[in-house]
Amino acid sequence: MRVIREIPLLRSVLPATEICLVPTMGNLHHGHLALVKEARLHAECVAVSIFVNRLQFGPHEDFDKYPRTFSEDVDKLEAAGVDVLFAPDETSLYPARQTVVVTPPPFADDLEGRFRPGFFHGVATVVLKLFNCVHPTVAIFGKKDYQQLLVIQSMVEQLNVPISIVGSEIVRDSDGLALSSRNTYLSKEERTEAPALYAVLRKAARRIIDNPGDVLPTCEQASQELTHRGWRCDYIEARRRSDLGLPEREDSNLVLLGAARLGNTRLIDNIEFNTAPSAAL
Amino acid sequence: MRVIREIPLLRSVLPATEICLVPTMGNLHHGHLALVKEARLHAECVAVSIFVNRLQFGPHEDFDKYPRTFSEDVDKLEAAGVDVLFAPDETSLYPARQTVVVTPPPFADDLEGRFRPGFFHGVATVVLKLFNCVHPTVAIFGKKDYQQLLVIQSMVEQLNVPISIVGSEIVRDSDGLALSSRNTYLSKEERTEAPALYAVLRKAARRIIDNPGDVLPTCEQASQELTHRGWRCDYIEARRRSDLGLPEREDSNLVLLGAARLGNTRLIDNIEFNTAPSAAL
Repeated sequence: MRVIREIPLLRSVLPATEICLVPTMGNLHHGHLALVKEARLHAECVAVSIFVNRLQFGPHEDFDKYPRTFSEDVDKLEAAGVDVLFAPDETSLYPARQTVVVTPPPFADDLEGRFRPGFFHGVATVVLKLFNCVHPTVAIFGKKDYQQLLVIQSMVEQLNVPISIVGSEIVRDSDGLALSSRNTYLSKEERTEAPALYAVLRKAARRIIDNPGDVLPTCEQASQELTHRGWRCDYIEARRRSDLGLPEREDSNLVLLGAARLGNTRLIDNIEFNTAPSAAL
Repeated sequence: MRVIREIPLLRSVLPATEICLVPTMGNLHHGHLALVKEARLHAECVAVSIFVNRLQFGPHEDFDKYPRTFSEDVDKLEAAGVDVLFAPDETSLYPARQTVVVTPPPFADDLEGRFRPGFFHGVATVVLKLFNCVHPTVAIFGKKDYQQLLVIQSMVEQLNVPISIVGSEIVRDSDGLALSSRNTYLSKEERTEAPALYAVLRKAARRIIDNPGDVLPTCEQASQELTHRGWRCDYIEARRRSDLGLPEREDSNLVLLGAARLGNTRLIDNIEFNTAPSAAL
C-alpha cells in the first residue's frame, strides 16, 4: 500500500485503471473495513482517504478530540489489501481559507442539518475535493450516515460528477449498536445502554409497518422512550428513502432516522423499511 | 467536428487524449475564435461548449432575448477546426431544479456581483458541470469577463479541480470596443458611442499611473464622464489584479474595471496596468 500525503504526488502515483474510493476520517473499525471489502468489488484499485475535516465540525463540536489512530489505521488498511491511502495534512487540502464551497440541496438543512448547521456544506465540499484529487470511478459511503449518502448522491448527480456512489450496509456490534468512531467516547455504562437507540428504532419501524397511519405518534413515543432512558433525543423521524421528504400516504420505501445524545456522545442510526403489505423487518 | 447534445454520448466520444475546453454561450464572434485559437496551443483536442445558462441570469435580465445563432456558430467552429462541440439542451444539463450549487468566493459579491446578485453562483456552477462533462485538462476564458476568470480560477484551486485555467486577451474592434455578444443589442448611434467605455478606462488608467495616489477621484471622474455622455455607470473601479481587492499603496499590478449601460445594453470592459515606475500603458 502506498501512503500519500501530497496531492501532486497522489496524482502521479494513481493508476490509469478504475479506482474505487472509500473516504474516511480514520479511527477505522469493522464498518470501514466492510466498505473496503465492498470497494474491492467495484474496481481494480482501492483507495482510502483519511482526513479529519475541520470544515464539517461546528465550533463547539469534537474536532480536536476526534479519535486519531493513524498507525493502527495504516496496519488495518494494509492487511485489508488497500492499494493507496491518501492522508493529506490540513495545509495540503486547505492551503488557504476555503471560501469556495458546495451548497448542498435544501434537505441538507433538515435532520442532521438542523442540529449541525453547516455540517453538510463541509461534507459536500471536502468530498468533492477528495473526488477531484483521487478521481475515482466509484466511491463507497456507509448507510449509517444515511443523509450524508443522499447529499453526496445529489451533489454528484447535480454537478455531473462522473462517479458512481454506492451505499454500503450498516455494520453492527452483536448487540445491535452501529459501529462508529464516536463509540469510543462511551463510558462502560453508556456502552451498555447504547444499543437502545437501534432497539427503539426497530420497535418503532415495526409499529409503523403495522400502523402506517401512526408515523408521528410512533416517532414521538420512540423519542420519549429514549428520553426516559436518560438520552437527550435530537430527532426520531420517518422519511421517504429517496429524498428524505416527509412520507405521504402512497410512500412505502421509508427510513427511520434517529439522533440522540448519551452523556456527551451523540449517536446516530437508522433503519430502512417498507410499509407495503409484504414488508418484513 | 462532432456536434453532441447528450452527456452520455459526449462521454463516449471524448478522446483519451488531452482536451482543451472553451465554454461559451454561443453567438460567436472573433473574440471567441481567438479563444479557440489559443485552445489549439494547449491540447490535441479542442472542445467548445455552447449553452445559454439560465442559472446565471437574473429574473429581469436578458435570458430570453440573448442572441442565439446556432447554425452560424457551428459553421464558424467547423471552419476554426474545432473537434467537438458540446451543445446540451436545457433539460440535458438541468434535468431537475439545480439545488446543489457552487458558492463562489466572497469577492464574487463585489463589482459584477453587486449589480447581478447570484450571477457568479450560476457561472461557477455551470462551469463546474461543464468541466465534469467534458473533462478538459485546460480551459480558456476571455479576460473581458475579468472577474469571472478570477472566480473560476478560485473555484478550480479551492475545489482541487485538475484543470489549468488560461485567461485570453480581450479582442477589440478597430475603434477599441471589446467584442461581446451583447454588442448586437446596440443601435447604430449607440455603437458609435460604445468605444467611449474603453477610451475612458484607458485615460483613467493613465492618470492612475501618473498619480497612483489618485485612484478614487480618478475613478469617480471617469464614471462622471460616462454619465455626462449619456451612460448609466454601474462602477469604474481599480483593483488588485490577483484577487480584485482594493489596492494598497504597495500594489502595482492593477486592473481597472468598468460596467455601464448605454440605452438598454449593459457593457463591461477592463484594462490591466502597472503602477510601477517603468509601467507603460
